[in-house]
Amino acid sequence: MSDAKHIAIAGATGAVGEELLNCLAQRKFPIAKLTLLASARSAGKTLPFGGEEIEVQELTMNSFEGVDIALFSAGGGISKQFAPAAVAAGAVVVDNSSAFRMDEGVPLVVPEVNGEDAQNHDGIIANPNCTTIITLMGLNPLHRAFGGVTKIIASSYQAVSGSGASGILELDAQLSAIAHGEPIPDRQVYLHQIANNVIPHVDVFTENGYTKEEMKMFHEGRKILHVPDLKASVTCVRVPVHRSHAVAVTAVFENEPDVDQARKAISAAPGVEVRDEPFADPPIYPTPLDTTNGDDCLVGRIRRDLVLDNALTFWVVGDQVRKGAALNAVQIAELL
Amino acid sequence: MSDAKHIAIAGATGAVGEELLNCLAQRKFPIAKLTLLASARSAGKTLPFGGEEIEVQELTMNSFEGVDIALFSAGGGISKQFAPAAVAAGAVVVDNSSAFRMDEGVPLVVPEVNGEDAQNHDGIIANPNCTTIITLMGLNPLHRAFGGVTKIIASSYQAVSGSGASGILELDAQLSAIAHGEPIPDRQVYLHQIANNVIPHVDVFTENGYTKEEMKMFHEGRKILHVPDLKASVTCVRVPVHRSHAVAVTAVFENEPDVDQARKAISAAPGVEVRDEPFADPPIYPTPLDTTNGDDCLVGRIRRDLVLDNALTFWVVGDQVRKGAALNAVQIAELL
Repeated sequence: MSDAKHIAIAGATGAVGEELLNCLAQRKFPIAKLTLLASARSAGKTLPFGGEEIEVQELTMNSFEGVDIALFSAGGGISKQFAPAAVAAGAVVVDNSSAFRMDEGVPLVVPEVNGEDAQNHDGIIANPNCTTIITLMGLNPLHRAFGGVTKIIASSYQAVSGSGASGILELDAQLSAIAHGEPIPDRQVYLHQIANNVIPHVDVFTENGYTKEEMKMFHEGRKILHVPDLKASVTCVRVPVHRSHAVAVTAVFENEPDVDQARKAISAAPGVEVRDEPFADPPIYPTPLDTTNGDDCLVGRIRRDLVLDNALTFWVVGDQVRKGAALNAVQIAELL
Repeated sequence: MSDAKHIAIAGATGAVGEELLNCLAQRKFPIAKLTLLASARSAGKTLPFGGEEIEVQELTMNSFEGVDIALFSAGGGISKQFAPAAVAAGAVVVDNSSAFRMDEGVPLVVPEVNGEDAQNHDGIIANPNCTTIITLMGLNPLHRAFGGVTKIIASSYQAVSGSGASGILELDAQLSAIAHGEPIPDRQVYLHQIANNVIPHVDVFTENGYTKEEMKMFHEGRKILHVPDLKASVTCVRVPVHRSHAVAVTAVFENEPDVDQARKAISAAPGVEVRDEPFADPPIYPTPLDTTNGDDCLVGRIRRDLVLDNALTFWVVGDQVRKGAALNAVQIAELL
């Protein structure tokens, strides 16, 4: 048990916090002590872990004494406020927010893609954006196989879990109202009805007309893949799906790609599987429901792009709460 | 009343057939006589039009005597079987199926885009694919403004109405089952559950790994825009939305495009409106619900593409049953 760690979870009562507990348990993470932290409002609640009920404590500046690894998933504001205190207390922070992702000295890590970067931290390691993680899980094996990726054009189909538990509740409340012939309840999370609709707006708009979410693929992709001149043009769209993201990706490579080689490269990579038999009866490709509550990302619809040279178009799907957030964070912790 | 026509609708009892009746009524199409045709199974039903109940007759080879314009919307097989009989009887056929779209001598017409092509028919005019129509409604003003479009990369968010009334019924049955905690009923239309899911598979797969639906934008786009070397690479995805399609489009032009000019060009075009204020509070962009039961397509999210030169990325939405099918067919009939 000498390797067992004192783990703290800041934001334990959220959708990702709950999944962090699932991932730690399922992966038998060696835990000496587990400290669950949340806002004063949630303090005193208990959450089940390993057959025990663990009481949630209020997150304060003094919460991190003796903590080895602090998993933050309570939003960027909380991370900015409390992560430095965790580091000062000697913990390594794995932060699920966007607060530190682009900071120099903060590794931004998808373990299957750039796990080695995790070692060069100054106390904080950032967990990338969920859509970026899932896209790169499909793209990285192709990036390695075809001499490097240079351009990405992508459109996302993002689940409401990306907005936290409240996103799921809002979709379900609208679906229930429609099914029962009742008026749609007031919206709290999205600007528009999300049931029976799709919304091309995730995170806030930036000066160039792209949203922050769309620019994350651009900036985080460069950092994770170590391709400083990578260009990405993305349209991020919220869809009425509970918890798996899908992304339609066109990627341009330095070398000429091949569809069969692409399937082999992805099949050989960890954490991602190929589901791509367009000529089978019935044809095989992944849908968001296929990855729900699963660890692996799934890739299908791999084909030569018809417009761009040296380009493939494909479709990648992953569970937003797991690989897009909690699982990736726990995998980072495992690297420590 | 000398201009009033004898109109026949083949497939009158389907989702598009019903909308054809709505469009004819709303647009006060000059009708001398209306003949409603469907399979033997539906013969004898009545449908309301202009305050009367009109009896549906069985579609046969002899259904078209005296008919001026026959609107077909009963699938490609029915069109192939019966459209020649209608033409032989002296009718002009406006066909909503894909049966004749790529045939030489058959104009493929979006009235706002290439209405003049409708005059060069040999008895049949084809109504384009719904996703292609809606995409071109947003793209054509930019094609005219920026020296011609050369490349399209697009991802669609397609409503279940594209599968006909049965697609809508299947989505609603699944949503109802989920809301009532009941098992999902057996599927008839889609290979996968469509509620709480998205499916990257519309129409059958072709040899190059693209679906027929995806290749329609490629081939139909060339014919409608008169750009024989246009290239299009599309991912078509079914989403749990009732009846409006959305498309995320990246388009490359001969000349350098400008976002403000693009907004002006679209605003000045018929049948399409700009809803694009990313810096308003709240930001303005269109969603599928905004076009449901409406005639105009809506465009937003117009921005310089970050990857390709001379390129814009935008988002276009339109009602699949109306502009994607019935309205466009009635507009073609109005050109005659």
